[in-house]
Amino acid sequence: MTIHTIEVVCTGSELLLGDTLNTNLAWLGQELAASGTQLVRETCVPDERSAMADALRAALSRSDAVIVIGGLGPTRDDLTRSVAAEILGRELAASEEVAAGIRRFLQGRGLNVPEAAIAAQSEVLVGSEVLANGNGTAPGFWCVADAAILVLLPGPPHEFRAMVRGEVLPRLRPLLVPQFARAEIRVAGIPESQVAAIVEGSMLAGVVPAYCAKPECISVRLEARANDGPLLARVTQRVRRALAPYALPADAATLAAAVGQLLRAQGLTLATAESCTGGGVAAILTDVPGCSDYFEGAVVSYSNRWKRDFLDVPGEILDRFGAVSEETIRSMLDGLATRYGVGCGIAVSGIAGPGGGTPDKPVGLVLIGTAVGPARQVRTLHFRGDRDEVRRRTVFAALNQLRMNLLPQTVHSAAANHQ
Amino acid sequence: MTIHTIEVVCTGSELLLGDTLNTNLAWLGQELAASGTQLVRETCVPDERSAMADALRAALSRSDAVIVIGGLGPTRDDLTRSVAAEILGRELAASEEVAAGIRRFLQGRGLNVPEAAIAAQSEVLVGSEVLANGNGTAPGFWCVADAAILVLLPGPPHEFRAMVRGEVLPRLRPLLVPQFARAEIRVAGIPESQVAAIVEGSMLAGVVPAYCAKPECISVRLEARANDGPLLARVTQRVRRALAPYALPADAATLAAAVGQLLRAQGLTLATAESCTGGGVAAILTDVPGCSDYFEGAVVSYSNRWKRDFLDVPGEILDRFGAVSEETIRSMLDGLATRYGVGCGIAVSGIAGPGGGTPDKPVGLVLIGTAVGPARQVRTLHFRGDRDEVRRRTVFAALNQLRMNLLPQTVHSAAANHQ
Repeated sequence: MTIHTIEVVCTGSELLLGDTLNTNLAWLGQELAASGTQLVRETCVPDERSAMADALRAALSRSDAVIVIGGLGPTRDDLTRSVAAEILGRELAASEEVAAGIRRFLQGRGLNVPEAAIAAQSEVLVGSEVLANGNGTAPGFWCVADAAILVLLPGPPHEFRAMVRGEVLPRLRPLLVPQFARAEIRVAGIPESQVAAIVEGSMLAGVVPAYCAKPECISVRLEARANDGPLLARVTQRVRRALAPYALPADAATLAAAVGQLLRAQGLTLATAESCTGGGVAAILTDVPGCSDYFEGAVVSYSNRWKRDFLDVPGEILDRFGAVSEETIRSMLDGLATRYGVGCGIAVSGIAGPGGGTPDKPVGLVLIGTAVGPARQVRTLHFRGDRDEVRRRTVFAALNQLRMNLLPQTVHSAAANHQ
Repeated sequence: MTIHTIEVVCTGSELLLGDTLNTNLAWLGQELAASGTQLVRETCVPDERSAMADALRAALSRSDAVIVIGGLGPTRDDLTRSVAAEILGRELAASEEVAAGIRRFLQGRGLNVPEAAIAAQSEVLVGSEVLANGNGTAPGFWCVADAAILVLLPGPPHEFRAMVRGEVLPRLRPLLVPQFARAEIRVAGIPESQVAAIVEGSMLAGVVPAYCAKPECISVRLEARANDGPLLARVTQRVRRALAPYALPADAATLAAAVGQLLRAQGLTLATAESCTGGGVAAILTDVPGCSDYFEGAVVSYSNRWKRDFLDVPGEILDRFGAVSEETIRSMLDGLATRYGVGCGIAVSGIAGPGGGTPDKPVGLVLIGTAVGPARQVRTLHFRGDRDEVRRRTVFAALNQLRMNLLPQTVHSAAANHQ
């Protein structure tokens, strides 16, 4: 048996009411894309028997494998097991083994759950393999039906993800017929149009690029036929070289991790002085495990009093040039270096909105300063968008500015100041 | 014409490859739920003509209204317009008016786009209303077909959202037959099982509660029939009263906003001293517009040197009890009060992982201290989950601890220390 087409059926009224964001779909899509397969469809239905049965029947008639997510819990609106049994013409049967596993799981966490709830979740689909759930009570099922494989998985993301990796992909991968090979290069610091021009100039026939601009970086995706892996690897290397120094290293999961690698390699320490981002730069930097090797701390100087008293920005500078000025940013960097004694610094001040803008200094105006030893760079940026957007873009622009300044031979770009 | 059922068709291979998270669906679901309507289905298809046509045809045969999201851009894989025209048996025609609007939009942003791209996006579906897009180039369409209304909207979220609110809902609402009335109460500081017990004790026939635990709070949703609005309002008030002081005020969008309301009303100032959260508490507090009324700043003391030198935690305390100890937290709070001169403080120290845990102090151990004037509370918590999860839960637990301490008559709960 080989699998060419996979689709997903998500169940749960909460997804259609917008109470829950469907993160499982995107996560599964990425996992399958890494195996060279694209989902051919996803259908989301409420917790209603007829809608579920209709969607499941259509999916099974269309695709080689169908993954159903959700609806395996203990409550009345958890219908997946019984709808699947009905459609496949199979029985549900109580499994003492599964019930014992659920009791062990609950006891291990000191939880007390009514026996009725345990009974509901220990019914198994006869003729299917039970998939163990290490992070919850509801098991999953792998069922080889007449024309298709049906997989049932619980909806809570940490249960779902662990079961996909531990139980589903090992069974699925040997059956998959890969449709493509993909590579990704993440780029920060130049606009998408320039990225595209550079990428197009490095293409070879058989590889197709696509672009996706995100707040953190521009993602360049290169796709080739499944058996063109060596070609894809060659083109990826060419593109990565052409995009230096803007391309993030392949082994850095995020911009913050890329900054961390450079600081660690050079034995430098870092602190931030933040106004409009309110600690957001420090929070992203400390997302990275092991950041205590280089990250020392931050002063969030939201009020002018803090800028003056705890970063030593002279009151005269604040009065004359304002908190959002190059002079203030340079003073904040000096304060980090002299008072706090760190080798590198990031200073941020800006007008995130919605209030506080003036004709001279409108909402979206942000100044970012970086220090690497005695070297300083201060940039004035103008971001579009609401408060969240301005703050988020500022955080990533600040990280990338420091990253560029930490690179051995930095090519400074005058572009991309208006984003 | 009345609309009982609405479904959504999302187009875009990026959604199925997991390159993009489908935030449009959840957002639209919430907007419609506020009008008493639940989407009956969502289908996501790749940018392929046959899959799109198949999904669209099925949706139009099933539901009174179909909203198609995405695929209206200028590139070859933007097929929505032409697939819709084919299925409805209508023509596409170039609109000079739409083209002129696109040119104006691009000129206003100083952008240069090839005429071919403008031409592709200025084709209109004959016999439909053009929906203006104030944030992008591709217009939308509102098309009354034989048995259903078909709405085509662009996929970029800021374009999509503005058009739903500005163009679609005003046309849709008068036609909708509401199916339910809903209310939400957000609760922080007690476990879900206790919330459920309190809520069940306040129910009246005709209202059904549902619960959803999120990192920030537990969301209690009350649902009644569409014409039972007055009953729902009465029950909501009863439940809200029964859940005091744990219920967030109805007019506070977030926990940080609720804290801000209390600080502003009492004329208090706040600063944070953060270790494991790395500025995350300050970043969330400064998400709230106008927070400069009460939020002064933060010291992110990630290293012990910063705790000692910039929060005046005695080296002896750090040596003897460690950075993750009640003694250190109390010193951090004292440092905020004496050195930084704020009325209220939040101090956080913990082991977020993945490294750094010991048998005595395992990953997930977090201490949270809050100060309101001279009053202090220090709690020891144990969070499950990975680094992200531990940090996120810590941020919200810290905000809620301060919120409870700022309430006029706080009922302190001994529960919920293990989450």
